[in-house]
Amino acid sequence: MKLSYKPYTLQLRHVFTVSSSSRVSTPIVLVEIEHEGIVGYGEASMPPYLGESVETVCRFLEKVDVKQFNDPFLVEDILSYVDSLSEADTAAKAAIDIALHDLVGKLLGVPLYKLLGLNPANAPCTSFTIGIDTPNKVAEKTKEADEYKILKLKLGSENDRELVEAVRSVTSKPLYVDANQGWTEKQAALDEIYWLSEQGALMVEQPMKKERIDDIAWLTQHSPIPIVADEGIKRLTDLLEYHGAYTGVNVKLMKSTGIREGLKMIHAAKSLKMKTMIGCMTETSCAISAASHLSLLTDYADLDGALLVTNDIYRGTTFKDGRVVLSGLPGIGLYI
Amino acid sequence: MKLSYKPYTLQLRHVFTVSSSSRVSTPIVLVEIEHEGIVGYGEASMPPYLGESVETVCRFLEKVDVKQFNDPFLVEDILSYVDSLSEADTAAKAAIDIALHDLVGKLLGVPLYKLLGLNPANAPCTSFTIGIDTPNKVAEKTKEADEYKILKLKLGSENDRELVEAVRSVTSKPLYVDANQGWTEKQAALDEIYWLSEQGALMVEQPMKKERIDDIAWLTQHSPIPIVADEGIKRLTDLLEYHGAYTGVNVKLMKSTGIREGLKMIHAAKSLKMKTMIGCMTETSCAISAASHLSLLTDYADLDGALLVTNDIYRGTTFKDGRVVLSGLPGIGLYI
Repeated sequence: MKLSYKPYTLQLRHVFTVSSSSRVSTPIVLVEIEHEGIVGYGEASMPPYLGESVETVCRFLEKVDVKQFNDPFLVEDILSYVDSLSEADTAAKAAIDIALHDLVGKLLGVPLYKLLGLNPANAPCTSFTIGIDTPNKVAEKTKEADEYKILKLKLGSENDRELVEAVRSVTSKPLYVDANQGWTEKQAALDEIYWLSEQGALMVEQPMKKERIDDIAWLTQHSPIPIVADEGIKRLTDLLEYHGAYTGVNVKLMKSTGIREGLKMIHAAKSLKMKTMIGCMTETSCAISAASHLSLLTDYADLDGALLVTNDIYRGTTFKDGRVVLSGLPGIGLYI
Repeated sequence: MKLSYKPYTLQLRHVFTVSSSSRVSTPIVLVEIEHEGIVGYGEASMPPYLGESVETVCRFLEKVDVKQFNDPFLVEDILSYVDSLSEADTAAKAAIDIALHDLVGKLLGVPLYKLLGLNPANAPCTSFTIGIDTPNKVAEKTKEADEYKILKLKLGSENDRELVEAVRSVTSKPLYVDANQGWTEKQAALDEIYWLSEQGALMVEQPMKKERIDDIAWLTQHSPIPIVADEGIKRLTDLLEYHGAYTGVNVKLMKSTGIREGLKMIHAAKSLKMKTMIGCMTETSCAISAASHLSLLTDYADLDGALLVTNDIYRGTTFKDGRVVLSGLPGIGLYI
């Protein structure tokens, strides 16, 4: 097996603003693992506020010695080894995990969902994200998202209600709300959640800072709609520690170290009677296609990452009338 | 897909006594799922004290309509449907789970461990079980178990120390101890565990009745060796509820409803920093071979079920110098 990688910069269609920052591009690293002439593709995406960068990912990948494994089917051993190399670097680890799953599927000639025993007919609708912007711009973006049946709003700034009203001036579609830890006072947050629920919000992600577990648990207890962990639950150990504070969990490959641990998280969350969501960063269709296989198990999907960029370099999972459509090709299902 | 099944009676080499009962045979039901000429094999084993019987298993299997699924690769959907048919019937459900995994592996032409991303070189040694008996008989059985590197003792009766001393008169091999809920007083149990630890016991299974969670948690806190759940943790939901009371968990396919949920349990237990064990009932080499794939992930293995019977009808996973050896054949790896 041979690992190679190169940095790339994704250009965003719109300036992307969440409660903590704005940006126009996202750095990623593209990964390939080759074995006997077959290539598996993977990707690390590094939004700037999550602590990884092109430099940290490349430094991590430099350390990874996949040559010691002659057999790509030793997925558990290989990924345990990769995980043992550092504490963090979850996006870098995800890139290897994705490439390895793509490779294994291709070597067997079957799509990943078939290896995982999943049914492509269970694909959910994805939400489409509307970033924080002026009310006029939000209304405009909402119109552009006509094809998508569910909108995801980034809130947690001062003009939350204005933004929701701007969306509601255009459409009555159901909403997922992502506060990105932006709310600071629990009673005010609860009032906001009640209001959002009346406005058609189906759930709220990460209402307050992840460290404020007691306040989040209180919100979860009192909220009329599910409270879903994002920043608060990255990996399986977090899920098993903090599940009591949330109704659901947003699993993202770049947080979970990839498909393998993401799948373990979804199974554990289901057993804990939690709502499950598969999410993404700004990513190419490589990481999105990888995540789309896990969407066959989840209640919610937010897989619009590649739709928000202008220079995607892969094709794989697509969307039809807002619904996730897997390509059915071997591995994660890319065609280049 | 077509499901068929037939009852069978396993004859035991020795009268098998645990702390609650004795027996000379175990009823099982053999299951086959056929798809496009390929047959997957499964098995339900029903030790009499666990609540299932030939009658309940056949009644359950009668209800299962696999014909509605055209595609055996829809493993998650099929097994969710099967699980939804009743609250209990875990052995009957395991029989279908095993047959389906065998079928899927055969259809792809690869052993199950390869589909699961596991390394056959990680196979552990199995323990070999010595049932409760007279000291002379125990010494005799211990000699017969010469090939096996670890012995498992069924304790929890009045002459525990005599039995351990009978084993120690013959060998100094490490011991797993299974009390089968037999101890009733926690301080006496702890004293016994300390003594057993000095006698070379590496762990103790289910020291007290599973309902006595607080006493078991106290034992776990004070014990010098791991306390492993058997009766106390059957399925993933039990694991997530009761993990705090134990150091480890013995996953058995007949409890967990099969390979798929057993795998989820092992992953969750590892993430909870628990010790993991793969165990068995009295079974043919069919269910043992199925379980042996999961042994590639566990700390302990107790897969001697088929060694304790005189009329096994399959060949698959074997043992060499006490170590688990997977056949490498497609599916669960049987050859008939």
